[in-house]
Amino acid sequence: MPLKSIPVVRDVLEESNARAAENRALFQRYNVFVVNIMSSPGAGKTMLLEKTIPLLKERDHRCAVIEGDITSTLDADRLQPLGVPVVQANTEPFGGDCHLGSHLVQGALKHLHLEALDFLFIENIGNLVCPAEFDLGENRKVVLLSLPEGEDKPLKYPLMFRESQLCLITKMDIESSLGVSAEKFQNNICMVNGRMKVIRLSAKDGSGMGDWVEWLLGRG
Amino acid sequence: MPLKSIPVVRDVLEESNARAAENRALFQRYNVFVVNIMSSPGAGKTMLLEKTIPLLKERDHRCAVIEGDITSTLDADRLQPLGVPVVQANTEPFGGDCHLGSHLVQGALKHLHLEALDFLFIENIGNLVCPAEFDLGENRKVVLLSLPEGEDKPLKYPLMFRESQLCLITKMDIESSLGVSAEKFQNNICMVNGRMKVIRLSAKDGSGMGDWVEWLLGRG
Repeated sequence: MPLKSIPVVRDVLEESNARAAENRALFQRYNVFVVNIMSSPGAGKTMLLEKTIPLLKERDHRCAVIEGDITSTLDADRLQPLGVPVVQANTEPFGGDCHLGSHLVQGALKHLHLEALDFLFIENIGNLVCPAEFDLGENRKVVLLSLPEGEDKPLKYPLMFRESQLCLITKMDIESSLGVSAEKFQNNICMVNGRMKVIRLSAKDGSGMGDWVEWLLGRG
Repeated sequence: MPLKSIPVVRDVLEESNARAAENRALFQRYNVFVVNIMSSPGAGKTMLLEKTIPLLKERDHRCAVIEGDITSTLDADRLQPLGVPVVQANTEPFGGDCHLGSHLVQGALKHLHLEALDFLFIENIGNLVCPAEFDLGENRKVVLLSLPEGEDKPLKYPLMFRESQLCLITKMDIESSLGVSAEKFQNNICMVNGRMKVIRLSAKDGSGMGDWVEWLLGRG
């Protein structure tokens, strides 16, 4: 609609990419593997972290989380028992943004000791659209697609599936009670992004979690 | 971040609200009840329409749908068998917007005969954040919250639940296999918006569909 907004949008994106590049340089300097975790609301991002971090800790890997939310500290509270650093990044003071920005990640990094970390997980806002557009400086983008969302989602929200390097099909434990087939999900993911690595898992019953941890240990 | 963008944002919002007001005037002139249906991806918006429209048709109410998607006509294709007018509104030509804008609705209206309609459903982009911010000129905003998304979502995405007049808790048929309680969902909805009307339903097994249709017939 408003052509006159384009220069401003360009400024914002340039600013955003500059902050992302600064973040990336920091992550490289301290050799921290950083994963940007994205999905629709309720696909299981927080539970994935609740179950993943203990598996990494028992192998002596040091983890931290930047917990992105519009408002509230509900997810960060869930992660407290894990005993790893968790920094809350709320977008509400920035207008309730629907995605994490690289400047928010940069602000959160001031509260973390990168030299004491192997893995940093950034849990993005629950949104299958907007977060895909923004580089945070991460090493890998991972998208969760839960079975209850339906197999057509990669076709309807392709950018997220084009931008990510790994897709975790989650909530595999309820595949039969939903009467769906993960195979169809995987086929649609491949149609959108043939290079996408796909792992089917259930954080609830633990199936597939080993493959996901191996992927992390191999640094994607 | 960029203070200089504020005037442009204001222009865009004024433009958006002006189009919404024009849409609203049209809906009033033709006495069409217009419902803006919003939710996360995969909460069941399309299936709700697949099951609702036949119930309205059998009572001789005339319906149409504006089907919002970033890309694809997958949902519109699903609605074709209903035999009602369906207009696809894709945001992809407008940058892949994460919400429907009032200008897109206005464009879609050119393909509909409002004088021949009682109900118009606008299925928004699957996104629990951004669509809540934009007035399309509708009579009512309805948010779907599906049980697999988790009971904390109203607390984490409050704007959607503040702006909507009705919340449909969907996928009630799998409540027991998920091991969740719809009561907790309803309590959190009420905490965010005490005036919210809530209906629990399953489009799959039909439970609660009568209450929803009554709400529509009473025009909210």
